[in-house]
Amino acid sequence: MAETPTRWYYEYITPDLFLSSHLSKIVFSGQTKYQQIEIIDTVPFGRTLVLDGRTQSSEADDFIYHETLVHPGMILHKNPKSVFIAGGGEGSTLREVLAHTSVENVTMLDLDQEVVDLCKKYLPNHHRGSFGDSRLTLIFEDAYKYLFQDKNRYDVIIIDIPDPLEGGPAYLLYTQEFYAMVKNRLKPGGILMVQSGSAGPLDYSEIFTAINKTLQSVFRSTMPYHVYMPSFGLVWGFVIAGETLPAITMGEIDSRVQDRISGNLQFYDGTTHSNIFSLPKYLREAIAKEDRIITKDNLLFVV
Amino acid sequence: MAETPTRWYYEYITPDLFLSSHLSKIVFSGQTKYQQIEIIDTVPFGRTLVLDGRTQSSEADDFIYHETLVHPGMILHKNPKSVFIAGGGEGSTLREVLAHTSVENVTMLDLDQEVVDLCKKYLPNHHRGSFGDSRLTLIFEDAYKYLFQDKNRYDVIIIDIPDPLEGGPAYLLYTQEFYAMVKNRLKPGGILMVQSGSAGPLDYSEIFTAINKTLQSVFRSTMPYHVYMPSFGLVWGFVIAGETLPAITMGEIDSRVQDRISGNLQFYDGTTHSNIFSLPKYLREAIAKEDRIITKDNLLFVV
Amino acid sequence: MAETPTRWYYEYITPDLFLSSHLSKIVFSGQTKYQQIEIIDTVPFGRTLVLDGRTQSSEADDFIYHETLVHPGMILHKNPKSVFIAGGGEGSTLREVLAHTSVENVTMLDLDQEVVDLCKKYLPNHHRGSFGDSRLTLIFEDAYKYLFQDKNRYDVIIIDIPDPLEGGPAYLLYTQEFYAMVKNRLKPGGILMVQSGSAGPLDYSEIFTAINKTLQSVFRSTMPYHVYMPSFGLVWGFVIAGETLPAITMGEIDSRVQDRISGNLQFYDGTTHSNIFSLPKYLREAIAKEDRIITKDNLLFVV
Amino acid sequence: MAETPTRWYYEYITPDLFLSSHLSKIVFSGQTKYQQIEIIDTVPFGRTLVLDGRTQSSEADDFIYHETLVHPGMILHKNPKSVFIAGGGEGSTLREVLAHTSVENVTMLDLDQEVVDLCKKYLPNHHRGSFGDSRLTLIFEDAYKYLFQDKNRYDVIIIDIPDPLEGGPAYLLYTQEFYAMVKNRLKPGGILMVQSGSAGPLDYSEIFTAINKTLQSVFRSTMPYHVYMPSFGLVWGFVIAGETLPAITMGEIDSRVQDRISGNLQFYDGTTHSNIFSLPKYLREAIAKEDRIITKDNLLFVV
Repeated sequence: MAETPTRWYYEYITPDLFLSSHLSKIVFSGQTKYQQIEIIDTVPFGRTLVLDGRTQSSEADDFIYHETLVHPGMILHKNPKSVFIAGGGEGSTLREVLAHTSVENVTMLDLDQEVVDLCKKYLPNHHRGSFGDSRLTLIFEDAYKYLFQDKNRYDVIIIDIPDPLEGGPAYLLYTQEFYAMVKNRLKPGGILMVQSGSAGPLDYSEIFTAINKTLQSVFRSTMPYHVYMPSFGLVWGFVIAGETLPAITMGEIDSRVQDRISGNLQFYDGTTHSNIFSLPKYLREAIAKEDRIITKDNLLFVV
Repeated sequence: MAETPTRWYYEYITPDLFLSSHLSKIVFSGQTKYQQIEIIDTVPFGRTLVLDGRTQSSEADDFIYHETLVHPGMILHKNPKSVFIAGGGEGSTLREVLAHTSVENVTMLDLDQEVVDLCKKYLPNHHRGSFGDSRLTLIFEDAYKYLFQDKNRYDVIIIDIPDPLEGGPAYLLYTQEFYAMVKNRLKPGGILMVQSGSAGPLDYSEIFTAINKTLQSVFRSTMPYHVYMPSFGLVWGFVIAGETLPAITMGEIDSRVQDRISGNLQFYDGTTHSNIFSLPKYLREAIAKEDRIITKDNLLFVV
Repeated sequence: MAETPTRWYYEYITPDLFLSSHLSKIVFSGQTKYQQIEIIDTVPFGRTLVLDGRTQSSEADDFIYHETLVHPGMILHKNPKSVFIAGGGEGSTLREVLAHTSVENVTMLDLDQEVVDLCKKYLPNHHRGSFGDSRLTLIFEDAYKYLFQDKNRYDVIIIDIPDPLEGGPAYLLYTQEFYAMVKNRLKPGGILMVQSGSAGPLDYSEIFTAINKTLQSVFRSTMPYHVYMPSFGLVWGFVIAGETLPAITMGEIDSRVQDRISGNLQFYDGTTHSNIFSLPKYLREAIAKEDRIITKDNLLFVV
Repeated sequence: MAETPTRWYYEYITPDLFLSSHLSKIVFSGQTKYQQIEIIDTVPFGRTLVLDGRTQSSEADDFIYHETLVHPGMILHKNPKSVFIAGGGEGSTLREVLAHTSVENVTMLDLDQEVVDLCKKYLPNHHRGSFGDSRLTLIFEDAYKYLFQDKNRYDVIIIDIPDPLEGGPAYLLYTQEFYAMVKNRLKPGGILMVQSGSAGPLDYSEIFTAINKTLQSVFRSTMPYHVYMPSFGLVWGFVIAGETLPAITMGEIDSRVQDRISGNLQFYDGTTHSNIFSLPKYLREAIAKEDRIITKDNLLFVV
């Protein structure tokens, strides 16, 4: 039976469903001050970062996740010069932000220096040297505390943090209180982008619709969107929020992509924009019906 | 350890990747004259039909697959009265076709009477009584042979058959020769819809792009589209083909859905149409570059 | 990939180790008043009874377990006429006891009538009609309570109950208090046999050595023994206890087997006796060092 | 779900049964000139050597396998001075042989220098420095070819090679022709020990009984024996062969162990000897009925 792979990486999507990949190498496995980290190589997805048992980013579909997280909001903005990133330790969000030629400075905050150091060392095809860019200020601190005292304002703020796991490092960064504070860190015309949990047909009601509702309670305009991530075995959700999000055509997106982004994108353009922002009927209906607002007194966790 | 599920259904997506569901019941398992059939209940997906080891249709996301397969082409057609379905043994394609009030007659051909009989008995929430509709003529025969001798012409033809597995019953129905013959069975303004294999980022090149190219070599107009299917663990591809496929707005789609379809849809409407037909950049590029045409002398199989 | 089995039954041996069998049928799955019951067919082990997530008895190696549990003690006894069985719901222990021609009456107690009824119906190759034997009195009651009030005494008492799971129905039947009471239900020369949990090199210290120590604290003579059970993925332990256990040669065992047991045994004879009672060095040393005595105030559970 | 182990090592016992261990580290994985080698750490079994997809030796039960392979035959011999080992690349067989104070020289042959070098580096708790013993001559060559030309004779020859896999490096070393040649390499009173494949109730007929029969066709006296190996999920079989194997008592074994072996054994002594040589009834019957003799023209492979 030597032909059947003998080593497998398992990831539970729900307690009753898991995705399993042929595991070729355990590059690193350990516990930081804040979370469990594993860096593994799997045959279907290549080099992969796993935090607290959940895939964050794999070589095979990193481009889908990070082009989707970063570019729609950046392209919607008229002229993004200053960007704040919370999380995104493997450097891929940073990489896509820096591809925008308008960007003059990026402040990136990650709670967990050990994770960033391990990603620098072991995930070169993710960050691709972004950590060495002179426009970057990298700070290891809690984003909530930092933004509370921060005097700066930003054109774009990107929240790219792990899911709100009970006992995990991130759950306070999904609350109305946090979003209200973040709103005050945006310049006029500023845009917030938030990774917002699974948005698939089986699990959108876990946190995705509630994050939407919470952001709606703070911002005048919100745009939910989603993309299928093979390495997660899930459709992933995102939300763009701002006071005035402009309408934009597919053609205008294509020309902004061409004018503002160095290098070639693999995933995002005007047509892809239409795909990821056109949510299916049941999901639009569920967002419309949602009435849960996440606050410090009404926390929401994923299991 | 009694809390961990002890019974699992495995489905290999590739030899190095599988999806596994908590299995609650094996309803039926057997071998027909043509293929292996399993009808199972899983916790995440409910009652599920599996042919030759591949999930065909599950209670949880049957609505996504079949609304996607049937409605875009039916709605694009001006006034579909006569419909031909090849395959679709579990009756869900039939169910969605019959929801169109314009439909006067449906001819459904399935090679495998045993599969249809088992589906009638064990999948009531799939077919929902469609097999009893007086507009239906149900025939158990090979679609290739039947269409070759058939004198009728149809407004819409739907090819909803298993993937081209070597040794399976379906591979000839993916060839240029078959599509050319099917074209002659369409009335003027007629539309062909074809399920076209996996269209995800890891595997679109297996058959999806080649089916597109093959249909392009026969029809003047083709429209590829795709949808994520949780129970397959895959993005699934489809193609609509015809001589003149009309342009149609999202608003026009919404009004045709309202006027022509009895009952409420869960998935499909104008916005969803925009989602499923807006392919991501890498996939549009791959379709453009594809040059394989499937013929009887150049067969293509999935593994 | 249709050749790879798609349905599997998992059983965790420890949280970090599991055995998995190709599952062909789920015959029955449900919850009785006392425990979870599953009756399944697996390819390697055939029809199998599972209680609270643990295999109790499979068609493939039922003969090993039950010949081992029953015959050594029965053969050691001079002339066993009256036998009491606690547990053994699938009827295999009963079957082996009734094979002894000296036996005049058997009292079998099982807490869970639903389990016995399901075994009668679905496990014919286990009980083989034993429940119809006129020597049997079958009672559905708690063994602890019953024996406490019972005025009868027995030549042989067999405790064939599930492991002491916290919240399960059996844990009080592993205590010193219970064994002391059982001792009073034995006739002079009487023998007690107890299934005693896993006795393998990785897990003998879980309960096996403690059950030994507990029985040593009540009976003058104890004989631990063990056998490898493929369907458990474990070496299983047993203890025989009595006031005076006679020495017996392999030849004497062979002649008693021939004289007293109707039908042919597959597993047990004099040489097999020597195998199962000759514990490896590390296990004898561990039994000698054990000092835990299980009492109502010092309960022991398996996880 | 972070609490459930996410990385597993699978090993198929049969195509329908597998054992799976929580995998903590992939220490090395590669392909030598002769075979696939993996050195892994698992939670239940510790550091483990796997060749061609089959566990050879794990930290947790290495003592069981190698005390069983080596000591019964060495102890049966009157005064073993010269020992030949074929295989045993991880050094554990060598380690147990060298514990015998009578041993003056050991010739160890392994086909695969890469395996030995990797074991030296990564399995220190297996070999425990044995490769540095001055009594050892280590040769990398095919055992068949070497023994054919060898002029030396040995007191004890130990064949500790992988199973006869088709296409593997070892299948010719299970033939009558090989055993006949090996017999001529034994000194008077010499003893051969052979690892002989799985001897469990489900699979003893695969090769174990046939190896017995083949050795019986060459040697006047053979003694089959067996032991349960948790890390294999199997009962493992062995055979001792010689022209005149002496009878020996359990007490005599204990005193020879004490006199001749330096250090303490964990597994083997007189009582354990009685355990491993007392085969269960069905297995003795199967050995008696076996009539397959393995020859170059009638090869036997495991699957």
